[in-house]
Amino acid sequence: MAKTVAFLGLGHMGAPMASNLVTAGFTVKGFDPVTELLDAAVESGVEKCLSPRESVDCADFVVSMLPNSAAVECLYIDTDKLLESIARDSLVIDCSTIAANSAKRLTHEAQIKGIHAIEAPVSGGVAGASKGTLSFMCGGDAGDVDRAREVLEPMGSNIFYAGAAGAGQTAKICNNMLLAIQMIGTAEALQMGVDNGLDPNVLSEIMVKSSGANWSLQNYNPYPGVMPEAPASKNYSGGFMVKLMCKDLGLAQEAATHSKSYTPLGSMARNLYGILSLRGGSDLDFSSIQKLFQTVD
Amino acid sequence: MAKTVAFLGLGHMGAPMASNLVTAGFTVKGFDPVTELLDAAVESGVEKCLSPRESVDCADFVVSMLPNSAAVECLYIDTDKLLESIARDSLVIDCSTIAANSAKRLTHEAQIKGIHAIEAPVSGGVAGASKGTLSFMCGGDAGDVDRAREVLEPMGSNIFYAGAAGAGQTAKICNNMLLAIQMIGTAEALQMGVDNGLDPNVLSEIMVKSSGANWSLQNYNPYPGVMPEAPASKNYSGGFMVKLMCKDLGLAQEAATHSKSYTPLGSMARNLYGILSLRGGSDLDFSSIQKLFQTVD
Amino acid sequence: MAKTVAFLGLGHMGAPMASNLVTAGFTVKGFDPVTELLDAAVESGVEKCLSPRESVDCADFVVSMLPNSAAVECLYIDTDKLLESIARDSLVIDCSTIAANSAKRLTHEAQIKGIHAIEAPVSGGVAGASKGTLSFMCGGDAGDVDRAREVLEPMGSNIFYAGAAGAGQTAKICNNMLLAIQMIGTAEALQMGVDNGLDPNVLSEIMVKSSGANWSLQNYNPYPGVMPEAPASKNYSGGFMVKLMCKDLGLAQEAATHSKSYTPLGSMARNLYGILSLRGGSDLDFSSIQKLFQTVD
Amino acid sequence: MAKTVAFLGLGHMGAPMASNLVTAGFTVKGFDPVTELLDAAVESGVEKCLSPRESVDCADFVVSMLPNSAAVECLYIDTDKLLESIARDSLVIDCSTIAANSAKRLTHEAQIKGIHAIEAPVSGGVAGASKGTLSFMCGGDAGDVDRAREVLEPMGSNIFYAGAAGAGQTAKICNNMLLAIQMIGTAEALQMGVDNGLDPNVLSEIMVKSSGANWSLQNYNPYPGVMPEAPASKNYSGGFMVKLMCKDLGLAQEAATHSKSYTPLGSMARNLYGILSLRGGSDLDFSSIQKLFQTVD
Repeated sequence: MAKTVAFLGLGHMGAPMASNLVTAGFTVKGFDPVTELLDAAVESGVEKCLSPRESVDCADFVVSMLPNSAAVECLYIDTDKLLESIARDSLVIDCSTIAANSAKRLTHEAQIKGIHAIEAPVSGGVAGASKGTLSFMCGGDAGDVDRAREVLEPMGSNIFYAGAAGAGQTAKICNNMLLAIQMIGTAEALQMGVDNGLDPNVLSEIMVKSSGANWSLQNYNPYPGVMPEAPASKNYSGGFMVKLMCKDLGLAQEAATHSKSYTPLGSMARNLYGILSLRGGSDLDFSSIQKLFQTVD
Repeated sequence: MAKTVAFLGLGHMGAPMASNLVTAGFTVKGFDPVTELLDAAVESGVEKCLSPRESVDCADFVVSMLPNSAAVECLYIDTDKLLESIARDSLVIDCSTIAANSAKRLTHEAQIKGIHAIEAPVSGGVAGASKGTLSFMCGGDAGDVDRAREVLEPMGSNIFYAGAAGAGQTAKICNNMLLAIQMIGTAEALQMGVDNGLDPNVLSEIMVKSSGANWSLQNYNPYPGVMPEAPASKNYSGGFMVKLMCKDLGLAQEAATHSKSYTPLGSMARNLYGILSLRGGSDLDFSSIQKLFQTVD
Repeated sequence: MAKTVAFLGLGHMGAPMASNLVTAGFTVKGFDPVTELLDAAVESGVEKCLSPRESVDCADFVVSMLPNSAAVECLYIDTDKLLESIARDSLVIDCSTIAANSAKRLTHEAQIKGIHAIEAPVSGGVAGASKGTLSFMCGGDAGDVDRAREVLEPMGSNIFYAGAAGAGQTAKICNNMLLAIQMIGTAEALQMGVDNGLDPNVLSEIMVKSSGANWSLQNYNPYPGVMPEAPASKNYSGGFMVKLMCKDLGLAQEAATHSKSYTPLGSMARNLYGILSLRGGSDLDFSSIQKLFQTVD
Repeated sequence: MAKTVAFLGLGHMGAPMASNLVTAGFTVKGFDPVTELLDAAVESGVEKCLSPRESVDCADFVVSMLPNSAAVECLYIDTDKLLESIARDSLVIDCSTIAANSAKRLTHEAQIKGIHAIEAPVSGGVAGASKGTLSFMCGGDAGDVDRAREVLEPMGSNIFYAGAAGAGQTAKICNNMLLAIQMIGTAEALQMGVDNGLDPNVLSEIMVKSSGANWSLQNYNPYPGVMPEAPASKNYSGGFMVKLMCKDLGLAQEAATHSKSYTPLGSMARNLYGILSLRGGSDLDFSSIQKLFQTVD
């Protein structure tokens, strides 16, 4: 008999993830407070539940994909107190990107109730969620993470085990901080090259084959026209929004402050993305940082 | 009959480059004002010349590998006036990393005398010079760059054509600025991860397979112990020295100021490497920026 | 009859503050968990109490000067639950520098118990505490702040009312973030001048009379030898320690992250002071940031 | 008999400066290549000359106020070769803000021809030029600077002697770099305060009386409405334009690169002002950096 997954949070990311679980043969019982999102999910085969509580009833796995720490803590612990309704043999898999401390709290509160819970924040964006090629950065008990693979594999192509509770979230923000730094650095280098007479295509080709190579340069060139399929060539639409990058960079700075770590470029990345978001870039793809270095028309 | 190459500047980079030309069958007539360097080159088959003038006599190609703009301008134009002694059918290939404006000046002054000259600054370090796997970022007349291939190929594995005179230098500093930003960003991310309880090996493995991937993470991990062969695991000895990165980042900032380009992370990279160099890191490999984020013992 | 002040926390700052209250005629009942500090305070006229609870008994005012948010919340609310022992007609004045949210929580929890509480973080350092010339940046009910003046005036020369609960802490970290930025900027400008041949005395004199004037330049020159009485001329001993500035800059970045404010220079200030603290500068006066820009001997 | 001053460059700054010399009783023979500017100066009593050469004929002093290094070097040395027309007993006073190396070159070339020349870059803006309250930061021979006082005093209220040729320019850019850092820091602190609920008037008043005090906070508050007479309260019109601050910060970074000085906040200041200028702020007063930290309407 098909195993059952409760899926909480059916937004841009959650909806395609849930759909991939349906395709893989799971019975997916979904909930989202936004009716339109819930109805849309139903069309891809998700069973409609009218409350979180209804969805987790008899579920083998509980997967959540929520916008921030507060939403996760409210749902499971403080307001909806969902942990009280989850069976002991269920496995909770929270895929939200939240503070490592919130992830630790969830695991800890679950443990008190005898429930197993792990964190599995993702990278790969909406495209990765749709294609089922997300990367999961898992934190929690190693055995629990192994048990989660059956659910994670239909949704992603990389399942990393980062360590104990909180470690998955930490790995995620370290990675995204580095991603932001590299995207900004790539934009700076391309603009400086262009301002000094280079062709951005030629410069991109040289750097991607040299020591300046990075993921952004290879897959996600921020200079308009270099990659026809990249957001940069589509007015920076689609992709990973500036406001989401701002959120991740805020989490990174909170972690750095807490651990007395020093991240001058990571700090600057938060400020530069923030300035871009204040100036109308909030909903653009994060490669639009290129615009910050160009004259406004 | 073997073609003749005059090779000027036989230091850490120049010596193995000249040696690779000897191996490839060129007659290499070398000069360096430091007698020890010149004598060492002779042992690898370079013919000893007592002056730059002697080395360029009847040379098909003149290759130079000098420390900075001033050295190049003094040699060819202002002091030694070597352009006056070079035959019109010679091709000058300057491999030094210098200001784009100096490179343009050399090409221009050569042109006035009917001599063809290109710039071909390299990336790949001493290791690349020894193995003959350097990347050359060429600027100048496209035909001249093609003609240079016969000499460049024995020394390198990538020959890029960046554009007109100066473009090779610009591409080089754009690339190296981006490299510096990525090395610092990688060091920041690894340290923040470790400070929050992650294993640097695990975090490195996650990021190199995720959107944080970059050349440094893949080939040159700055955290001690992650890559046994990297400079980080050898007390940051060998590799590309901090003081050379400082030089390149200074050239990048000069270019950015001149073209009114804005490079906040590139500017910060120069300052952070500078602070490291002031505090005893000048001769260490550039991955030692990791130390800036760690407690001194 | 003399009014009674309970004084909690008799460290570098608290001890001279309590002493000034004794001099002003208050009966001061002190407590500190470190016996040596408590005994030292007794010598200046403070009455020794063996617990926080003993000290607040029958006190007209309760003044606390503690190292961080956690210490304040533990003392009054979570661990020692001191609010339960404070009389309703007492006024609590917390002089610690803590997160605005912690200050709001203290005021709120006190209110629930019918106790009036304000925050009054200080600026002016150990010297200001000794001379009774501190500045207090008060937050809370305006009437309560007025009532506190009788206790604050013997300890300080400026009593600012910043606004409702939390506003005093916010004003304090805004001020200290700006102070840090200016100290670093002053050190950068002086070093760049000296590196280009200027006399630091002459340059300081010019800037202090020009648009570069700031409090640090006027009272606290970071270049050794310019002001014989400044910490810079005494091997950076005394004054306001780097580790305390790091703490304040961490609070500032937490506030900025929380309010989605962008402070590129404030962020960089935290990172630069952090790098200095990692490299042996933790206990030096904060003007020692000058050393970061100079060659290590 | 009235002494004669040749005045070259009658723009926003030069025109009121020349006018003050007329008022002080000098015969002022002016030149500017822009006819409108020249005609406007004539109305305030300047004698119209049709070439630089005509203006310097028989002049006791030659004062120039030009936009950049290239303009100064072209006028005196490379193109107009004005040094060839200046009498040996004239004193050249260049008030332009230019690279220290250009200032040294002018002094040196003048010396070769037996002419005395000093640099005297100013601070104080158009307002200071009009009121005759500029600060002059002089570099050159001390005796020459003393001789210049008779001309400088009617135009300014502070005449600083910074040292040998180039020192005046260095002092100027050190001061202006610090000014920029402080203006940005002030804007960051005010915005963070406001975002956390403080009144900008109250916060300004607290900081100006505390350790955050600086010239900008005292005379030139960047938050709209705090000072009715400041540019911030007049849509950032008037004052010292962003593009001019960008120029000075570029000179500062060139000097820092040349002297291997490290100025992280100074570098960031250039980048932040540059980003503001790219986004439409070029002609606004430099206190408009406040806008970079606020949501665009």
